[in-house]
Amino acid sequence: MAKTHDHTPQSPASQSLPAPVHESRLRARYAETDQMGIVYYSNYLVWMEIGRTEYCRSLGIPYREMERQDRILLAVAEAHCRYLAPAFYDDEIIVRTWIEQASSRLLTFGYEIQCATDGRKLASGYTKHIYCDTQLRATRLPQKYWKVFGVIR
Amino acid sequence: MAKTHDHTPQSPASQSLPAPVHESRLRARYAETDQMGIVYYSNYLVWMEIGRTEYCRSLGIPYREMERQDRILLAVAEAHCRYLAPAFYDDEIIVRTWIEQASSRLLTFGYEIQCATDGRKLASGYTKHIYCDTQLRATRLPQKYWKVFGVIR
Amino acid sequence: MAKTHDHTPQSPASQSLPAPVHESRLRARYAETDQMGIVYYSNYLVWMEIGRTEYCRSLGIPYREMERQDRILLAVAEAHCRYLAPAFYDDEIIVRTWIEQASSRLLTFGYEIQCATDGRKLASGYTKHIYCDTQLRATRLPQKYWKVFGVIR
Amino acid sequence: MAKTHDHTPQSPASQSLPAPVHESRLRARYAETDQMGIVYYSNYLVWMEIGRTEYCRSLGIPYREMERQDRILLAVAEAHCRYLAPAFYDDEIIVRTWIEQASSRLLTFGYEIQCATDGRKLASGYTKHIYCDTQLRATRLPQKYWKVFGVIR
Repeated sequence: MAKTHDHTPQSPASQSLPAPVHESRLRARYAETDQMGIVYYSNYLVWMEIGRTEYCRSLGIPYREMERQDRILLAVAEAHCRYLAPAFYDDEIIVRTWIEQASSRLLTFGYEIQCATDGRKLASGYTKHIYCDTQLRATRLPQKYWKVFGVIR
Repeated sequence: MAKTHDHTPQSPASQSLPAPVHESRLRARYAETDQMGIVYYSNYLVWMEIGRTEYCRSLGIPYREMERQDRILLAVAEAHCRYLAPAFYDDEIIVRTWIEQASSRLLTFGYEIQCATDGRKLASGYTKHIYCDTQLRATRLPQKYWKVFGVIR
Repeated sequence: MAKTHDHTPQSPASQSLPAPVHESRLRARYAETDQMGIVYYSNYLVWMEIGRTEYCRSLGIPYREMERQDRILLAVAEAHCRYLAPAFYDDEIIVRTWIEQASSRLLTFGYEIQCATDGRKLASGYTKHIYCDTQLRATRLPQKYWKVFGVIR
Repeated sequence: MAKTHDHTPQSPASQSLPAPVHESRLRARYAETDQMGIVYYSNYLVWMEIGRTEYCRSLGIPYREMERQDRILLAVAEAHCRYLAPAFYDDEIIVRTWIEQASSRLLTFGYEIQCATDGRKLASGYTKHIYCDTQLRATRLPQKYWKVFGVIR
């Protein structure tokens, strides 16, 4: 249902080195459509969340355990999405996720969303996160995660 | 935006004594529609939640404070909804809420959902709840709430 | 990701003959949780929708095509859910779906929702549907679907 | 529940002339929270939709009628949100909406989201839209809407 491979997405020109890109697959739900007959725009942010959950799992860091064991939350500081083509009910969707930038304070994920059925590129975007403790106070990423997230000191 | 008055709804035949019925108003959101052009069915359960939140506020018990101060959660044990007519985007909606039954273990809310614009009855239903502590263990309702919820010993 | 097999679920006592039961799998999303730390109750109705979409696909009737080609919509007339245990973020969920009753006017799906990770039974329920045309007027199921849905005249 | 007044929001420095800013009010729903105990990030895009719906209504153009009568849809081309402070269940929320830029091809709304209870600024953002016909093909805004949206030729 998901795979990770080393291929540089073409859109984030800022990335000069190949970054691992993770692919998740899902199907557009009836609940996610609106009366325009297409997937409602806020749901792309939910799909991005699935993308980064699966990305972290592929790195061997289930996000659930990061929250439970290390009490580290990834609070969203910014979200951006460009909508290129509509997604329809029951479309099989590919969410490509990669880390754009990682520091001990901030983490930025990049995303590309594509329709698996017909290959159309549906959307691209990013989310910026700050690490928080369970009281929602900004904190630093524990060192044990630095390597896997590619943190630059 | 909301009012409470003493009138017995006709549907719950089980109630022989007049129970206070609370009315909340909201507007159907674009996000809540689906490609059928009507409000997606799970959103009625969200509207019921708004109904009981406002009902509790009208009793002088903000549910938020029940959770924060007394650490009492109302976990849902059962939900039921009959859909009588479709709701459309931007319809003004009335949610009528009342307590069907209250004990120190269980609380049942009844609901009627109506379109304010044209008077159509859209749905009726109920939700059954058990009181839980913050560890999600079943507990009893603190005595201070018994009178206001009409708990029968 | 999904399979169909002939085994009678134990809960619907009304069914004396084995009915095909379809299993869909999904993961509880962060977006689906609430501040109680568990999946919000209306999302079970979304999971039921995924269950019946996958059920229809397994019968060789993609629901998307039923809507597009035959202009038949399955409007929800009733929904019921009993919540037995909480679902948590990232839990792998099994949705078992079967047809409880089918006539040319009405279609009832039954559901059981289980946590794949630890085997806990999370919920059971049903949804009743009427067939509608694209103007949302009640209609009859076209005969070509009778056999596959098990319509009893 | 909503009002329009002429005051320039401080954030969009690009706007040199006072633009009408519309205020909508809503309450954060339990359904909108997540297990972090705060409103899930995609719901801010739903609140923005409420903001622009109410903005259009305040201009005398119910968006519902734009879709129904003139068959003009506002498809989202881009969405951006900066999250400044968390929103909590039952917070009363103010959504301030204004038109950042309007042409016969594109419409950009700006937003500021604030907590009414304690005055905290929660978020700011924008959404860019293209006008579409009901077949989702890009089209031009009918001239009758130019004045009210402030379209610059």
